[in-house]
Amino acid sequence: MYRAPVEDIAFTLKHVAGMKSGLDAGAFGDLGEDLVDAVLGEAGRFATEEVAPLYKIGDEHGAVLKDAAVTTPPGWKELYRRWIDGGWNALSGPEEYGGQALPTMLGVAALEMWNSAAMAFGIGPTLTMGAVEALDKHASEDLKAKYLEKLVSGEWMGTMNLTEPQAGSDLAALRARAEPAGDGTYRIFGQKIFITYGEHDFTDNIIHLVLARLPDAPAGTRGISLFLVPKFFVNDDGSLGGRNDVFCSGLEHKLGIHASPTCTMIYGDGFQGARPGAIGWLIGEENKGLACMFTMMNNARLCVGMQGVAVAEAATQKAIAYANERRQGKAAGYVGAGMAPIVHHPDVQRNLLTMKALTQTARAISYCCAHAIDMTRVSDGDEAAHWRDRANLLTPLAKAFSTDVGVEVASLGLQVHGGMGFIEETGAAALYRDARIAPIYEGTNGIQAIDLVTRKLPLGGGEHVHGYIAELKASADQVRTSNRDGFGRTADALDAALGDLTQATAFLQKLSADGRTDQALAGATPYLRLISLAAGGAYLARGALADQGRTALCRFFAENLLGEARALKERVIDGAESLAAAGKTLISA
Amino acid sequence: MYRAPVEDIAFTLKHVAGMKSGLDAGAFGDLGEDLVDAVLGEAGRFATEEVAPLYKIGDEHGAVLKDAAVTTPPGWKELYRRWIDGGWNALSGPEEYGGQALPTMLGVAALEMWNSAAMAFGIGPTLTMGAVEALDKHASEDLKAKYLEKLVSGEWMGTMNLTEPQAGSDLAALRARAEPAGDGTYRIFGQKIFITYGEHDFTDNIIHLVLARLPDAPAGTRGISLFLVPKFFVNDDGSLGGRNDVFCSGLEHKLGIHASPTCTMIYGDGFQGARPGAIGWLIGEENKGLACMFTMMNNARLCVGMQGVAVAEAATQKAIAYANERRQGKAAGYVGAGMAPIVHHPDVQRNLLTMKALTQTARAISYCCAHAIDMTRVSDGDEAAHWRDRANLLTPLAKAFSTDVGVEVASLGLQVHGGMGFIEETGAAALYRDARIAPIYEGTNGIQAIDLVTRKLPLGGGEHVHGYIAELKASADQVRTSNRDGFGRTADALDAALGDLTQATAFLQKLSADGRTDQALAGATPYLRLISLAAGGAYLARGALADQGRTALCRFFAENLLGEARALKERVIDGAESLAAAGKTLISA
Repeated sequence: MYRAPVEDIAFTLKHVAGMKSGLDAGAFGDLGEDLVDAVLGEAGRFATEEVAPLYKIGDEHGAVLKDAAVTTPPGWKELYRRWIDGGWNALSGPEEYGGQALPTMLGVAALEMWNSAAMAFGIGPTLTMGAVEALDKHASEDLKAKYLEKLVSGEWMGTMNLTEPQAGSDLAALRARAEPAGDGTYRIFGQKIFITYGEHDFTDNIIHLVLARLPDAPAGTRGISLFLVPKFFVNDDGSLGGRNDVFCSGLEHKLGIHASPTCTMIYGDGFQGARPGAIGWLIGEENKGLACMFTMMNNARLCVGMQGVAVAEAATQKAIAYANERRQGKAAGYVGAGMAPIVHHPDVQRNLLTMKALTQTARAISYCCAHAIDMTRVSDGDEAAHWRDRANLLTPLAKAFSTDVGVEVASLGLQVHGGMGFIEETGAAALYRDARIAPIYEGTNGIQAIDLVTRKLPLGGGEHVHGYIAELKASADQVRTSNRDGFGRTADALDAALGDLTQATAFLQKLSADGRTDQALAGATPYLRLISLAAGGAYLARGALADQGRTALCRFFAENLLGEARALKERVIDGAESLAAAGKTLISA
Repeated sequence: MYRAPVEDIAFTLKHVAGMKSGLDAGAFGDLGEDLVDAVLGEAGRFATEEVAPLYKIGDEHGAVLKDAAVTTPPGWKELYRRWIDGGWNALSGPEEYGGQALPTMLGVAALEMWNSAAMAFGIGPTLTMGAVEALDKHASEDLKAKYLEKLVSGEWMGTMNLTEPQAGSDLAALRARAEPAGDGTYRIFGQKIFITYGEHDFTDNIIHLVLARLPDAPAGTRGISLFLVPKFFVNDDGSLGGRNDVFCSGLEHKLGIHASPTCTMIYGDGFQGARPGAIGWLIGEENKGLACMFTMMNNARLCVGMQGVAVAEAATQKAIAYANERRQGKAAGYVGAGMAPIVHHPDVQRNLLTMKALTQTARAISYCCAHAIDMTRVSDGDEAAHWRDRANLLTPLAKAFSTDVGVEVASLGLQVHGGMGFIEETGAAALYRDARIAPIYEGTNGIQAIDLVTRKLPLGGGEHVHGYIAELKASADQVRTSNRDGFGRTADALDAALGDLTQATAFLQKLSADGRTDQALAGATPYLRLISLAAGGAYLARGALADQGRTALCRFFAENLLGEARALKERVIDGAESLAAAGKTLISA
């Protein structure tokens, strides 16, 4: 079973993602390494001892809907209670409302551990934290006063209500409507689908954040507003009042994360005889809802990226443990009696090392993204702008690369288990099932790649990304000057990959400048993979430079996985024409 | 829902895999193109209209065990009956026992269609056909007379009993035992696991082929014998007698192929008060069981490869259909009203074209393998030896590459569906689940790669593979001399990939000659992918040369997917040292 890799996480935060220098420079106020270690250690203990044991029952039992009420799997409600009692929901929440305001880096590190232990558990609080952030930044003081404290503590949970059957990736197609009631509130009508933890028994109240259109709002995304719709009304003394006209009409039967209720939510249909119209309060300005929601979504994208890292870590641990137990055949390197543990077979080692290296690269990228978010908060002026650009650049990498890695690593992990991997009891299959949603929700990975190419490469007049590549190159240079034998051809491999990255970047920037967007979009996904692999390689090198024990894995990555970079560059530069030509044949008459 | 791609299949058989020239040369006796088309058309109709509609209930209901009897999902028993009544089980069976003795090419083409329609259905008869082949080649005339006719017709089904809890990939560890009873029969004792269709309600009798050890047999694989153990004894008049002492004690709860019962079989435990000891008959010679079983396994490996092709085809069809229906966002190429069908987005096209191209390459490789098997049968002397080598060379490619492709394509297909892909009702998730077993059973793909490098590269004194590469190169040359604009840089890409393949091949052959097997094993999996991609590219080119309409997809493959070849070559040549160094760190103290 999963054991939180606290040391690995702490190392990556401090020595790869930049937390150590931040701490040393006093960037995070009083926060010191002792507290960081204590928080990570305790989170690791909770994830390992409390969350992980409930994974299996969660997967097998799932969430159950009866009479518009959802029951979570046995023990999960109590787990959530212990979890918020431990203060975990409040970790990075605003101090003003009872949060501990710890850096995002610590928040996502803890989040990784909850998600490794049980992804269906980890996804719930992610939505609450997103709601906290959106309210904190955009809501009126009244709304903040009424809702934030209990959302920060986790006594209530939050949800994000975007998707409708016809409006998934394209929110312009949204139809849910909001009518001003004349008393400052609005009446909300419509159906939302795929609402994670839209209904459940963890908390007494659920605070829905809902996108809807006002009457006469402009068409498209400029006519969308954001509303707060509580399940139960909240009296001025904070006690709960009557039931709002919102209810869960169905749960999806999903491939994975069975314990996480994925709800169809009906707003304003006269639930239980109520006067139709769910009562909602506007967050931010009318018709500016999408901007408010993006506050949540950027955060959520990094959080979903952590799910990719998390599943990859859990799958890697499980596969390494199995490979050390299971004995089959003879292996040249094994001198013991009888059959060799399969971990001695080179082909099994190749799978396990690929899993380990990909997991660590995805983790490093995601933590670096969190670091940039933290630095944005503690700096100002040009420096803040620099870190904001960095966070924006790394968000699609953290989301898409990490979740692709989650799927790939879970699949390799299942493979290492042989026939046992296909049997549900083993648990490898459950990770393979759970992992598969993360490349889809919070913006599909294809949309992340498009975001990267069309919105992130132009940051800083197109210079930000080149500055980033130069930083990565500095790590490659350090590898070269280290003259450490164990690095093998790492420096050459990094240089080659970073050279490919530079070329592909300049090429895509030129296409965009020339207005050839469609050609750039054709290369978006290979480009996202290319920059992620090159960055990941440099981050592994940074880790190895700080800790010699990490050299071998860094070299394995450089010499076995980084070679893909060149083919990716070629796809970016030379792939679009043939894609367009062949793509036409896919379209039905 | 799945529609059998009969035209595509017929085209690949005839113009890529070599059936046309075989037919024209009269290699297959009376068999003409008319009959080939008729068989394919009728198989396609049956798969589309009869099998595919029962996929979903099979997945949802699964096989159920009660009192040692397994019930298949509603309608499946009747489906099987209609299927054997159509003569489909007998398609490539020996004529002497009622089979139609049609080429393996036709058999695997039909098999692809059954498996696309429902993989859990397609896997059952695969085992029966394997049993037919093993009996036909190795059994005594008495056994053949008693069992073959009904196995060929499908009135009875066959099974393969190899795996035991401690003996999966490594059959040397096998413990099931067989004691001579003194009357020419044997008493079999032991437990077998993962027995596909080990027990079911399709047929009145089930003929188990079981590996076991005789008393005092040599240790390891040289002490294994093969036995025929019927579920019910067969009287001399062909009627069924009493029940044998073999029963199903459990069904696995699997990730996918739910309708296929995966059984734990208990031999010789005194089932229902029987005198303990399942009665078995020796097939072939004592202690030569593994050779007999390999007859079945080679055939089964190609058949499992077809499952990879089959799932990839089904996933591709489903994704293309969905992408033409689902509308989201705007696309540069779309001039219609409202949101564009997502098939117009370049990133979606990239996914779909990748799926389509990989499916077609895997199909071409697998059909070429079947062609080689057929040519072995209709030729003799050096020519037969040549084709035998070719079939042996291509078998690990057909098995491992195709089943890897099955998983990759099913995963991409799910992704194209966005959020709907994660919902079980859509059906994309079921393909992702089903696909995952194929890289594991019948020898994991890692073992296929080892087989390729250690047993297949040395064929013909190491020359056979180079002759094969030269044939592939001839297709690349034809692309170049065709001067067809639509090919773009296809010829260059093929030449580069084939050059990489030649280098990697020579390198691995040299390693083996030098006795550095472990280093060769480290590169086995990347090598298998390399040769498969290069071969697949050449086969797509062969298709495009025969049919101009196939040029665009061939070019897409060459310019977008074939670039991976160089990185794979580098892994083969340069990857082993770092793998060995890092691999050590995986081993528990």
